[in-house]
Amino acid sequence: MKGDRITWNTEDEVMFYDTDVGGVVHNLAYLRMIEFCRTKLAMKLGFDLRTMAETEVYPVVVKTEITYRQPARLGDVIETLGWLEDWGRVRFWCAFEMRLKGSESLLISCRQQLAVVQMPQGKPMRLPSVPEN
Amino acid sequence: MKGDRITWNTEDEVMFYDTDVGGVVHNLAYLRMIEFCRTKLAMKLGFDLRTMAETEVYPVVVKTEITYRQPARLGDVIETLGWLEDWGRVRFWCAFEMRLKGSESLLISCRQQLAVVQMPQGKPMRLPSVPEN
Amino acid sequence: MKGDRITWNTEDEVMFYDTDVGGVVHNLAYLRMIEFCRTKLAMKLGFDLRTMAETEVYPVVVKTEITYRQPARLGDVIETLGWLEDWGRVRFWCAFEMRLKGSESLLISCRQQLAVVQMPQGKPMRLPSVPEN
Amino acid sequence: MKGDRITWNTEDEVMFYDTDVGGVVHNLAYLRMIEFCRTKLAMKLGFDLRTMAETEVYPVVVKTEITYRQPARLGDVIETLGWLEDWGRVRFWCAFEMRLKGSESLLISCRQQLAVVQMPQGKPMRLPSVPEN
Repeated sequence: MKGDRITWNTEDEVMFYDTDVGGVVHNLAYLRMIEFCRTKLAMKLGFDLRTMAETEVYPVVVKTEITYRQPARLGDVIETLGWLEDWGRVRFWCAFEMRLKGSESLLISCRQQLAVVQMPQGKPMRLPSVPEN
Repeated sequence: MKGDRITWNTEDEVMFYDTDVGGVVHNLAYLRMIEFCRTKLAMKLGFDLRTMAETEVYPVVVKTEITYRQPARLGDVIETLGWLEDWGRVRFWCAFEMRLKGSESLLISCRQQLAVVQMPQGKPMRLPSVPEN
Repeated sequence: MKGDRITWNTEDEVMFYDTDVGGVVHNLAYLRMIEFCRTKLAMKLGFDLRTMAETEVYPVVVKTEITYRQPARLGDVIETLGWLEDWGRVRFWCAFEMRLKGSESLLISCRQQLAVVQMPQGKPMRLPSVPEN
Repeated sequence: MKGDRITWNTEDEVMFYDTDVGGVVHNLAYLRMIEFCRTKLAMKLGFDLRTMAETEVYPVVVKTEITYRQPARLGDVIETLGWLEDWGRVRFWCAFEMRLKGSESLLISCRQQLAVVQMPQGKPMRLPSVPEN
């Protein structure tokens, strides 16, 4: 990946269903927010949702690494920044950082490796050439 | 529906992901537990999960009516009782009651109307004859 | 409720986590989208999320009635319109309609009754006077 | 960790809400199943759910690493094996493997690092001595 990286930003306001009895956002809720950001980022990389539903060729998550640094709470606005980190022959990596809106302090850092597969067989596909920003 | 009714029981221990910041089980979590009970009940009515995945003929929820009477909390064990309430030509009704294990007191009452459809077109199918217990 | 009704609109783009193996949006996913709309509507009615987290006074769902008319699919944009339907002494009703963006055709109609309670005891509170638009 | 390791097994039958339009189990659903296994394992380590709800001392996930090797489908029964991998002064690691019931073939491998915190302040607590099997 040379030059400007390909990025996407999303925002989520923390709802009741994002929280648990501990009073903070549940660990799975951050991953749902990250999936929203990643899906929009993938659209920018050429993976259109409706085309995927027709062709049944989907990017699938192969690996997730996530670190929970600080908690968010009900009503907080979380900003998620996602970017394409690496683009190989059959797999690519995305990375994500989440912060409270207007804050520099990191809540979450995450990396996900994806492959593109033809469903329902699950056959891995070769990636096209590196997408440009 | 005459004679003995067709029923199914399930149990769920309340986990963190079932709760919210209010300290009690979130309204959507009960519906996930009910879906588990309903799916097992539907299997008893002849709707096998793997057959469904192959034929793409699925029972789908058309209507849900749910009343939240008392809350459950982290670590509680919830018993869900589901039964077939009515079986028509193209739709059927299931009903559910949820209680804390060992308690008579009602937490939740719920009714769901279902239709059987051929996906992906969503074409409604005629129901077979009334299932027997 | 006289005069102009109090409303809120939200939009959701259908993600993978909203869908199931039937190829359409899962019945629980619509209720999560409705909760987002309802929470924003409640903020307009004076229920601020962060204040709630501090005072532990929350509006809770007492009853949900939802009818599933037509399915939405991956990549669809769903518009949810929510409004205050009735405001009583201790409970109020909200109503919701969901449509594909730019379409008149109804996907979902839903009504929810709510009460305001002091947690963690779950003590019901008297509602303040009718909110104005 | 010397001697016999501390383990827990859980089983999950794949429901509609676990799947997505790709026809397989959604990446987040495996993590909910893992959380169920981890919570039961934590109970064996002395973290009782109801005690936690009262004292507000909770084990929280600090890091998750998960690799998705093969997909599961509607109706499959997934066995999750969890064990305590490492126990330090302020953090511990759990590990998990998921397989189709009766199969040796690995679907998912996962590791999670946890800390014990006093909520709502989020203050980290020192771990007690190494639990014995």
